[in-house]
Amino acid sequence: MSTPETQTHDIARLIISCPDQPGIVAAVSEVIAEIGGNIISLDQYSTGVEGGRFFQRTVFHLPGLAAARPAVEQAVQTRLADRFSMDFSLTAADQPKRVAIFASKTDHCLLDLLWRHRRGEIPMDIAMVISNHADLAEDVRPFGIPYFHVPIVNGDKAAAEAKHLELLTGNVDMIVLARYMQIISEHFLEQVGAPVINIHHSFLPAFIGAGPYQKAKDRGVKLIGATAHYVTRDLDEGPIIEQDVIRVSHSDDVAQLTRFGADVERAVLSRAVKWHCEDRVIRSGSTTIVF
Amino acid sequence: MSTPETQTHDIARLIISCPDQPGIVAAVSEVIAEIGGNIISLDQYSTGVEGGRFFQRTVFHLPGLAAARPAVEQAVQTRLADRFSMDFSLTAADQPKRVAIFASKTDHCLLDLLWRHRRGEIPMDIAMVISNHADLAEDVRPFGIPYFHVPIVNGDKAAAEAKHLELLTGNVDMIVLARYMQIISEHFLEQVGAPVINIHHSFLPAFIGAGPYQKAKDRGVKLIGATAHYVTRDLDEGPIIEQDVIRVSHSDDVAQLTRFGADVERAVLSRAVKWHCEDRVIRSGSTTIVF
Amino acid sequence: MSTPETQTHDIARLIISCPDQPGIVAAVSEVIAEIGGNIISLDQYSTGVEGGRFFQRTVFHLPGLAAARPAVEQAVQTRLADRFSMDFSLTAADQPKRVAIFASKTDHCLLDLLWRHRRGEIPMDIAMVISNHADLAEDVRPFGIPYFHVPIVNGDKAAAEAKHLELLTGNVDMIVLARYMQIISEHFLEQVGAPVINIHHSFLPAFIGAGPYQKAKDRGVKLIGATAHYVTRDLDEGPIIEQDVIRVSHSDDVAQLTRFGADVERAVLSRAVKWHCEDRVIRSGSTTIVF
Amino acid sequence: MSTPETQTHDIARLIISCPDQPGIVAAVSEVIAEIGGNIISLDQYSTGVEGGRFFQRTVFHLPGLAAARPAVEQAVQTRLADRFSMDFSLTAADQPKRVAIFASKTDHCLLDLLWRHRRGEIPMDIAMVISNHADLAEDVRPFGIPYFHVPIVNGDKAAAEAKHLELLTGNVDMIVLARYMQIISEHFLEQVGAPVINIHHSFLPAFIGAGPYQKAKDRGVKLIGATAHYVTRDLDEGPIIEQDVIRVSHSDDVAQLTRFGADVERAVLSRAVKWHCEDRVIRSGSTTIVF
Repeated sequence: MSTPETQTHDIARLIISCPDQPGIVAAVSEVIAEIGGNIISLDQYSTGVEGGRFFQRTVFHLPGLAAARPAVEQAVQTRLADRFSMDFSLTAADQPKRVAIFASKTDHCLLDLLWRHRRGEIPMDIAMVISNHADLAEDVRPFGIPYFHVPIVNGDKAAAEAKHLELLTGNVDMIVLARYMQIISEHFLEQVGAPVINIHHSFLPAFIGAGPYQKAKDRGVKLIGATAHYVTRDLDEGPIIEQDVIRVSHSDDVAQLTRFGADVERAVLSRAVKWHCEDRVIRSGSTTIVF
Repeated sequence: MSTPETQTHDIARLIISCPDQPGIVAAVSEVIAEIGGNIISLDQYSTGVEGGRFFQRTVFHLPGLAAARPAVEQAVQTRLADRFSMDFSLTAADQPKRVAIFASKTDHCLLDLLWRHRRGEIPMDIAMVISNHADLAEDVRPFGIPYFHVPIVNGDKAAAEAKHLELLTGNVDMIVLARYMQIISEHFLEQVGAPVINIHHSFLPAFIGAGPYQKAKDRGVKLIGATAHYVTRDLDEGPIIEQDVIRVSHSDDVAQLTRFGADVERAVLSRAVKWHCEDRVIRSGSTTIVF
Repeated sequence: MSTPETQTHDIARLIISCPDQPGIVAAVSEVIAEIGGNIISLDQYSTGVEGGRFFQRTVFHLPGLAAARPAVEQAVQTRLADRFSMDFSLTAADQPKRVAIFASKTDHCLLDLLWRHRRGEIPMDIAMVISNHADLAEDVRPFGIPYFHVPIVNGDKAAAEAKHLELLTGNVDMIVLARYMQIISEHFLEQVGAPVINIHHSFLPAFIGAGPYQKAKDRGVKLIGATAHYVTRDLDEGPIIEQDVIRVSHSDDVAQLTRFGADVERAVLSRAVKWHCEDRVIRSGSTTIVF
Repeated sequence: MSTPETQTHDIARLIISCPDQPGIVAAVSEVIAEIGGNIISLDQYSTGVEGGRFFQRTVFHLPGLAAARPAVEQAVQTRLADRFSMDFSLTAADQPKRVAIFASKTDHCLLDLLWRHRRGEIPMDIAMVISNHADLAEDVRPFGIPYFHVPIVNGDKAAAEAKHLELLTGNVDMIVLARYMQIISEHFLEQVGAPVINIHHSFLPAFIGAGPYQKAKDRGVKLIGATAHYVTRDLDEGPIIEQDVIRVSHSDDVAQLTRFGADVERAVLSRAVKWHCEDRVIRSGSTTIVF
């Protein structure tokens, strides 16, 4: 999960999933070797030998990848996917994901992503920041990223989402909700055609919904958590990518819990986005595999 | 919370709670000084200056404590409790709590407590181990603690609890449920007259009830937790004393989650019991103050 | 250590240290009560009952503190300090520490401090940022803090330090070295008259000096750490305020260790600065007490 | 690192290391497929593509492994080892490592290993416990493991080590020093022919040698650590397998630091022994790869 893969030129990532059966690793390795690729890293996981599902992430070096890519996809399709009833995706490591970040008024998750992006820690291109408020525009400007203020006028969320889709369609590969305080409609999820990652400001499945730090205080918990997950139509129920906690005590009031929470939230969201951008996260029903 | 208080002779602990108002710390310090005591440590907490409740734990050295104790209690009652509408308790550090441990078939929490007790890490006397199964008797024997096997015959839990009360009444100051897999009745809680601490094998308030590790696996969580709490009539809702988590991944099956969980459970329960035995934990509605 | 003390008006902090003996807590409480103060929080620690040294931090509310302060100091001096051979300091919570931050070319510690300051998380006024490089000027500008570029010309460090002293004298209460890559001279430390906090990019006392992440990689460690400490004439030997670590593996190269290290460094330094600004840290020989 | 591999029958583990070059993963997969094996898990690591060294751990299922093993070793030797200048080892998962545990007077590491072994958490056979003291014999007896008391008579360590070698030779695959307070001689290490794992009661490379908790207290550190490492002739310099820390404060005295340290020590040593027994740890110069 932590393998550095800093070199990106001519590096391909092949993500596969299929019913488990003997010989998959060997077959994949063989195909990669035959097309002239050299495996750099390989992770696999099976939900069970009998009747389970198999997942593999293979990173390999292939000179001239850009030109060879159609041939590679063809080889994977015919020699692997057809044979093993396999889903697959092939990405080039030097083609970063194009990302849109949604925010509202709080800055901690947004700024952490912008700052890590500037440092080169996350392999993504941030195409735009979208917010229902103007507040954070000044903070974003020094990073040179477009900031689109899309207010929700007269409570017309559908109009705002239509505007979002105009901005996003064809321009992004993923969407990050960096403490965006609006519920995403099912219609939007269907239309946008890109995965949406959210940071939930609590340790799911506990303290779902609004006011999690007040709820945590009322319950007297000793740890405050945050959860990054893919957004699905079932609010707070999407597959979990990453979670973490921080220790608190009875003497921390809700304001202090919220500050501690902000530190956990930005750390957890940044890790989740990084892993997604490195094609390390595979969705599997209500859970994820994180290689 | 971590102050070592290894010396115990002539050491008293005064735990107070009352409506917050100015002058409480000074009044308590003054009374202790006047009776000849020397304050060793002092922790206090208020839920709010206006209309809040004040809690304080004061540890002090008083030569001849055993003889002076009635006079001390009298002084606290008349000079502090009456004046500040104060609840208080006074304990002598060299009088360890008398504890009964309930267990069923799993050994990890029970053995960790027995072992820490033998090392002198927890200031308690373990009066007895009670189990609805005979399985752990051999493990307990080398520690020289009585093991009472109280099976539940024909599902008659009331009979078993009556037997428990016979064993416990007058003999213990607290009860620890060390993975005791039976629900405690409200009647028992009322009759037993001693606080009951339970270890819940999940990160409350998530994954309540049975099978928490399976639930955690199904939900794809990345951290496994455990929670020690006081038992109240509302199952899984008692005031939380301590919690902790351990990092897991998609590749850990339920058996492995359960093993990791066991490590967290025994650590969390041991800390909670230790703190309770040191009079560090004060219940306050649905939460706790842990000094 | 985590008590929120968000209200600051009319709040005083009294920090004392003296040879341990009975009656100190009571005497302090009595004086505070007599001058009309109400104790909000109180922490104390003794290095040993016999021949030890006693430390106490008392936070109290006193209406009209600004006007009453000379009288309070007088009372503490005559009623406490003289009697107990006590060192003491009295601060007003609404008078934030004036801070200068030194940086070089790396931004992570500096930006985390600026950002937390803007959010109101650390009770300080940042008077200036001083750097031997111009690189970070643009990053600092949006925060509205003066940035002084003091290059070291022809290796003349003494000249640079003289310039530093001009800028600092009378203007700051503390100095934070936020990855400032120059050694501070003993002369500077003597002249500046304010405590200097440094973030050391390793888990002291291991991996002292330059290149700690390469050293950690060579040694195969499984955790990367950072240490915030007061600067003394003995490099890397100053009293430790805070430390933390992050888990790494064999697969992390030095660049990745450095990135992980940056996350730990900024978290550790920010906590240390916050605690210092709240008068929670007391130096005691080569160590610290952190209330 | 955490993949559960609970099924052990007909499961082989192939550990290889060789100069890195293209095609190794494919070649290994191909050989395993040809002999009828099905890869269950595969981890690899390279110290660098150019001139680096490659390491791989492959777990595979092979029906009839016990009978087929010579043929498998032959295939690996001729088809892989000769071609890639490869070192390799092949182990059967149902043949647990035979382990000797050395202890002195403190019980925490020893008991944690015995208890985890009894629970089936660590795939090892504990052949014997050897101690220079008789103190722990009673604690070991209930676990049904032979306890050999080998005192050091008149300071004659060589005689004791000769006795150790008599007991160990041919009987064990690894040796665990569970807080064994004697220095192991270079001669012993050469003669015993099995890896030796030690738990060092500090966070190496800090606080080497005796009295680490006193040293930590003197230095005012905020975290206490422990390190499990292979024993080499250079004391405290062997390759690190695992490390961990626990948070402490100024108020913890040396006795309390030692108790916290004991908790970290047993956790760290148990993980290191488990990983070694699962063939997850590969030594590489002064460091380790832990798959």
